[in-house]
Amino acid sequence: MPSLKPLLVVAGIGQGGGTGGATARAFAKEGYSIALLARGADSLKSLEEELKASGADAASFPIPSYEHKSVQSAFEAIRARYPSSEYSLRAALYNAGHGVWKPFLDITPDDVKAVTQTNIEGAFAFSHEVVSEFKKNEIDETNGKRGALIFTGATASIRGNTTTSAFAAGKFALRALSQSLAKEFGKENIHVAHAIIDGGIVTPQGRERFNNPPKYDNEDQRLSPEAIASAYVYLAKQERSAWTWELDLRPAHEKW
Amino acid sequence: MPSLKPLLVVAGIGQGGGTGGATARAFAKEGYSIALLARGADSLKSLEEELKASGADAASFPIPSYEHKSVQSAFEAIRARYPSSEYSLRAALYNAGHGVWKPFLDITPDDVKAVTQTNIEGAFAFSHEVVSEFKKNEIDETNGKRGALIFTGATASIRGNTTTSAFAAGKFALRALSQSLAKEFGKENIHVAHAIIDGGIVTPQGRERFNNPPKYDNEDQRLSPEAIASAYVYLAKQERSAWTWELDLRPAHEKW
Amino acid sequence: MPSLKPLLVVAGIGQGGGTGGATARAFAKEGYSIALLARGADSLKSLEEELKASGADAASFPIPSYEHKSVQSAFEAIRARYPSSEYSLRAALYNAGHGVWKPFLDITPDDVKAVTQTNIEGAFAFSHEVVSEFKKNEIDETNGKRGALIFTGATASIRGNTTTSAFAAGKFALRALSQSLAKEFGKENIHVAHAIIDGGIVTPQGRERFNNPPKYDNEDQRLSPEAIASAYVYLAKQERSAWTWELDLRPAHEKW
Amino acid sequence: MPSLKPLLVVAGIGQGGGTGGATARAFAKEGYSIALLARGADSLKSLEEELKASGADAASFPIPSYEHKSVQSAFEAIRARYPSSEYSLRAALYNAGHGVWKPFLDITPDDVKAVTQTNIEGAFAFSHEVVSEFKKNEIDETNGKRGALIFTGATASIRGNTTTSAFAAGKFALRALSQSLAKEFGKENIHVAHAIIDGGIVTPQGRERFNNPPKYDNEDQRLSPEAIASAYVYLAKQERSAWTWELDLRPAHEKW
Repeated sequence: MPSLKPLLVVAGIGQGGGTGGATARAFAKEGYSIALLARGADSLKSLEEELKASGADAASFPIPSYEHKSVQSAFEAIRARYPSSEYSLRAALYNAGHGVWKPFLDITPDDVKAVTQTNIEGAFAFSHEVVSEFKKNEIDETNGKRGALIFTGATASIRGNTTTSAFAAGKFALRALSQSLAKEFGKENIHVAHAIIDGGIVTPQGRERFNNPPKYDNEDQRLSPEAIASAYVYLAKQERSAWTWELDLRPAHEKW
Repeated sequence: MPSLKPLLVVAGIGQGGGTGGATARAFAKEGYSIALLARGADSLKSLEEELKASGADAASFPIPSYEHKSVQSAFEAIRARYPSSEYSLRAALYNAGHGVWKPFLDITPDDVKAVTQTNIEGAFAFSHEVVSEFKKNEIDETNGKRGALIFTGATASIRGNTTTSAFAAGKFALRALSQSLAKEFGKENIHVAHAIIDGGIVTPQGRERFNNPPKYDNEDQRLSPEAIASAYVYLAKQERSAWTWELDLRPAHEKW
Repeated sequence: MPSLKPLLVVAGIGQGGGTGGATARAFAKEGYSIALLARGADSLKSLEEELKASGADAASFPIPSYEHKSVQSAFEAIRARYPSSEYSLRAALYNAGHGVWKPFLDITPDDVKAVTQTNIEGAFAFSHEVVSEFKKNEIDETNGKRGALIFTGATASIRGNTTTSAFAAGKFALRALSQSLAKEFGKENIHVAHAIIDGGIVTPQGRERFNNPPKYDNEDQRLSPEAIASAYVYLAKQERSAWTWELDLRPAHEKW
Repeated sequence: MPSLKPLLVVAGIGQGGGTGGATARAFAKEGYSIALLARGADSLKSLEEELKASGADAASFPIPSYEHKSVQSAFEAIRARYPSSEYSLRAALYNAGHGVWKPFLDITPDDVKAVTQTNIEGAFAFSHEVVSEFKKNEIDETNGKRGALIFTGATASIRGNTTTSAFAAGKFALRALSQSLAKEFGKENIHVAHAIIDGGIVTPQGRERFNNPPKYDNEDQRLSPEAIASAYVYLAKQERSAWTWELDLRPAHEKW
């Protein structure tokens, strides 16, 4: 990464207290500029402010939905804000998701559409933009990569279950995309990885909703977004000689 | 199945010479009435005529696309043609598919949409109709089932590859749906199965296009639609005490 | 199978009331002669008598253990009893097993040895004999095979768990063997299959030990050995054009 | 790790130039004392000398084989050399292996025994000793662990192939063991991980044997032992809140 500044794009921020936000913070500490892409302009803005307050170079790019065109437009805005004369996209996290846990017969066409749009339409659009950018990069001499694209998966990425027909369909599809990309672009030194998050992630919203039960502070029992983000930083740094497509992440005491 | 006649619905017929058509013929021989559902009214009609000529009770239900509403309307027409006073839906095959084999960067939003519509939107709509019908059935005393719903998968159902990012995303999703349904509805004696077809299926169209190479007549090297259909008949007959969610099917000499 | 009589070899009979015994009975009904191979001469003899009483051609070959040499000697005796001038080995079931369910630290070197011997040493020796015999066969024109070798697996074939470290190690290894053989010998029209039995199998011994609870007669909740055997007969009959390496078998109501 | 010095035990060193040796060096740099356990006293000694020359605290424990008793005796010697008053076993790598690549019918009972002994008998004995030691440890406050036990797997851990029936049987079994241990001992804050090494590892012996072809210096095409070791150090450091059972490691350009 000669003189260009490394840039991370994160899609999927939620309220800012989960995996997307923690990943933005972690990569900012590693010296990356940060482009935040998500639905929900308010949370985006507040995370952007927080990152800037900590000294980071950050900007937010709200989108109305994960429709192809929205994602494409967001990347045009990202390229304008972070021009290739100065910045080089080096890492990307696709963390968007839409959780639907319902008996199959209660799942509506709109549920299916929401799952499909976040996990497939948006993921393909995001990956298209990211891979196209990565291909323009020089190989980073410290790790032998043009860039690292990471996907957040879930237990439902590898196992369908009684109330997860829609959610698992989306997560299986996302995993397929990540594996296909890993195989297709490895030979161009583009690293694609998929993390199977197996367990509950505690966010500020979750704490509030469930009245902050003691187990939420027990790191043996719950996934901290910071620990996940630290795995993502590791993946982005892995060297070309031995890198990972897929790993699982779960708390020590998780039953699985 | 006391006095009601058993009915099979097949979605995905192609030109009639593949798995969908062979399955219709095989179940017709087992005494099922046949409802054919697919895009492409011409092929449907010609398969319907052929089935009738062989003495079967068959009807076709062309749909413009695998959009939720089209599938739903087709089932309304099926219920009108095969009223529940006389018929009982006992088997269903979801064989619809849309093959896209392209380098990732050549995949268009329309490709993604086509894959998504056949493998997710249409599959969810079809399954919703089928499971709802099955739930009304008495348990068949010969095998302990309310009905059998079978999905046609592919190698790409379990492995993404360099040119299959879209195809595999669709097939992974379909597999997730089938597994979720198998787990959710097994306890209601509804049998859901998924077949991983690993290898080339020879159809009349394929023969014509590739000038009928000798290997197309070599059953060691290619999957005959009839052999696949015969596995589907077996799955539909499996007893409640030991039934199968997933099996693979490949020719003897296939390299895998 | 021109004028030679088809022979089935089953290894692993237990007390005769489980999968091995049911498979022997089912293949006998299909016209196979039966060679029974197991530890425990008494059960073997009693199953042999039962098969003969039903009109079948059966013989038992007790072995002291699944040590390589014992298995080899048993096959010498089988070849003497069923000479190749008259018989042709066409199907084989490796059903031997040794269940160990213990917390890891309680597992003894003897437990490990027992699991290893039944699942690896014996399985390799058995497969060596069977494949060598199959290679001498003509291709059966009804299904395009030289023979079918089936392995009985379990949930532990694909998932290790808290009390199954030894059992799963053995079952994973057996599955690896079966997949390797399927790939290596498919091109010689030798069919190798692996069945993942997921759930409880009810045997006469089990009934006695647990005082025959009602669920033991509920075929929604338990695997009947006959239903498993019927799947094995199906596998042996599958045609060369679409055959199966692996399928799962579980009762309708099994939670998985 | 209050005042006790952290200790790593590595089993499986080969000639010292592969994964086992690199892992010893990498953990030594992290401040661990090193116990080397392997067949082949010469290579062990030379690696021990090298580690000492670099300032590390290292000792070698040659064993005649991976038989249960040999492994047990080696741990007695380790405990004598590294007494629990001063040292605390905090990390362990089981890297022993025995590669057999042969057509199935050429595999001998001795091949099967060798594979079984390294992948099962030795692995169970090693794990028994390691887990027993870990249970005595206080939880390390920096990462929430009592210790980390890592297993080296291979492509053959998840896929049998035409010449790998014996090798894959061993590697599948080892993977089953690692998953069972991960599930059983996670709740005691013992971290068990399994790395699927997918590709060729270049060692000094390999260079010599194959006349050092250019691709051996191409880190896009081959796995460097150092890169694998660096993944193992990462695994050992992962926090309790999000740790990994399994990851794959392959070079950027590997076809898979």
